[in-house]
Amino acid sequence: MKFKPLGERALVRIVEREETTASGIVLPDTAKEKPQTAEVVAVGQFEDGVKVSEGDVIVFAKYSGTEISLEGDDYMILDADDILGIVEN
Amino acid sequence: MKFKPLGERALVRIVEREETTASGIVLPDTAKEKPQTAEVVAVGQFEDGVKVSEGDVIVFAKYSGTEISLEGDDYMILDADDILGIVEN
Amino acid sequence: MKFKPLGERALVRIVEREETTASGIVLPDTAKEKPQTAEVVAVGQFEDGVKVSEGDVIVFAKYSGTEISLEGDDYMILDADDILGIVEN
Amino acid sequence: MKFKPLGERALVRIVEREETTASGIVLPDTAKEKPQTAEVVAVGQFEDGVKVSEGDVIVFAKYSGTEISLEGDDYMILDADDILGIVEN
Amino acid sequence: MKFKPLGERALVRIVEREETTASGIVLPDTAKEKPQTAEVVAVGQFEDGVKVSEGDVIVFAKYSGTEISLEGDDYMILDADDILGIVEN
Amino acid sequence: MKFKPLGERALVRIVEREETTASGIVLPDTAKEKPQTAEVVAVGQFEDGVKVSEGDVIVFAKYSGTEISLEGDDYMILDADDILGIVEN
Amino acid sequence: MKFKPLGERALVRIVEREETTASGIVLPDTAKEKPQTAEVVAVGQFEDGVKVSEGDVIVFAKYSGTEISLEGDDYMILDADDILGIVEN
Repeated sequence: MKFKPLGERALVRIVEREETTASGIVLPDTAKEKPQTAEVVAVGQFEDGVKVSEGDVIVFAKYSGTEISLEGDDYMILDADDILGIVEN
Repeated sequence: MKFKPLGERALVRIVEREETTASGIVLPDTAKEKPQTAEVVAVGQFEDGVKVSEGDVIVFAKYSGTEISLEGDDYMILDADDILGIVEN
Repeated sequence: MKFKPLGERALVRIVEREETTASGIVLPDTAKEKPQTAEVVAVGQFEDGVKVSEGDVIVFAKYSGTEISLEGDDYMILDADDILGIVEN
Repeated sequence: MKFKPLGERALVRIVEREETTASGIVLPDTAKEKPQTAEVVAVGQFEDGVKVSEGDVIVFAKYSGTEISLEGDDYMILDADDILGIVEN
Repeated sequence: MKFKPLGERALVRIVEREETTASGIVLPDTAKEKPQTAEVVAVGQFEDGVKVSEGDVIVFAKYSGTEISLEGDDYMILDADDILGIVEN
Repeated sequence: MKFKPLGERALVRIVEREETTASGIVLPDTAKEKPQTAEVVAVGQFEDGVKVSEGDVIVFAKYSGTEISLEGDDYMILDADDILGIVEN
Repeated sequence: MKFKPLGERALVRIVEREETTASGIVLPDTAKEKPQTAEVVAVGQFEDGVKVSEGDVIVFAKYSGTEISLEGDDYMILDADDILGIVEN
């Protein structure tokens, strides 16, 4: 099963424990304390300005997004405006 | 009796129990726990950006939509902005 | 006495009991339980997008509209945005 | 003393008792129970869409308008958006 | 000392007691009961639609404006939108 | 140390005691009672409509602005919209 | 690890103790009392009007921004609108 975000939205997977992401970034301890770090899983149709891609580790605004569960895993659907920036390797 | 949504709205049928939808998608257990999954029944006039079709299984934002009852079945009328994405087979 | 709605508004008559409307639709029991079903009596000047006509049975958003009484009958004045869709025969 | 409304506003006189208005409309009992019926006394500069004239009996939205007193009589100044429609003879 | 309002604003002097204004209007008792009557003292740069001049007696919306004191006299600075109309002689 | 306001903002110094401002205006007692009088110290990039210059004594809206302290002196950063007018000599 | 702000945002490091910033500005005592002074670390894509660069010491609006922790250091992500001005040397 796959999920296709509509409009200016992205599907992300919350990064909660020390782990190596799909794109090879090992998240340090300090990042783990903040729940608002996530990895982009799927991207809708962004019109302009916000450019995130599958595999990007992003920081999102507190109290934003909608949690959903797909095949037993927890994800969030974020509005483009709530994606504050990209953590680069 | 049929219902024709006006403007950027869609009529959807809440998917609550394990079942095979009209388009053949069997919803897994994990999805059933979330009430915000629904199947599109009818679509109004969407101007741009949001593309859903009859039979799509969609996820919608919490606390959105208006419940209506048509011929004994429960439906919801959703604004286009509250349709977050499509669950693909 | 007649009432002419101004701008993007419609005058509607609440449908509360089982009855045959002017356009011949018999409303089933399930629809009666929902107070937000009404029949369009008069239409203002709609600019675009919302197309309702005299006699249409429409569903409107909860907590919307202004009640008025004309010659002993109860009506509502609705904004175009609060008309969610049309119940078709 | 006269009052000239500025912009998209109208000066109206509340119709509270059974009476014949200047334009000859006798208001029935049912209308009297609703305080939001008024007769237009003066009109500002309406740009488009809302067309009311001196003498029109109009229905206005609840909780709208500003009460003023001119030469001992009570009036209201209404925004064009708060004038919902015209009661026609 | 003079005060020049900026943008779509006007400086007005509250009219509280029976008196003859600079433009010769004697305000009747009924107007005195309403604190929202004032005389225009200075006008900013109004772009369009609202036309008031020095000496005009205007009615303004309740709870609007900012009180200031200039050389011992009390004035108010009003936004153009809060000036509802002009009392004409 | 200097401060350069960004966008449609101005840096102002609150005028609280009887004093001669840099542009030579002696503020009378009545003005002193009002804390919302200030002298413009630096101006950002105003696009249109609001024209204040260094040295202008202005009146600003209550509850507006952000206080900052620069080299031991108290200043405020005001949005252009919160500058109501200029006190002229 | 680096952080790239998206859209009209900047990553800043809060300036809390007397110190010499990267661009050589020694912050005086009075500035230290105000928590809303910060040094720009990274800048997103500003469209127009707000021009800040890496190393600028800026003042930002109270109650704005999102705190994040990167490699053990505390940062804030600010919207362009919340950057009030630049402290110049």
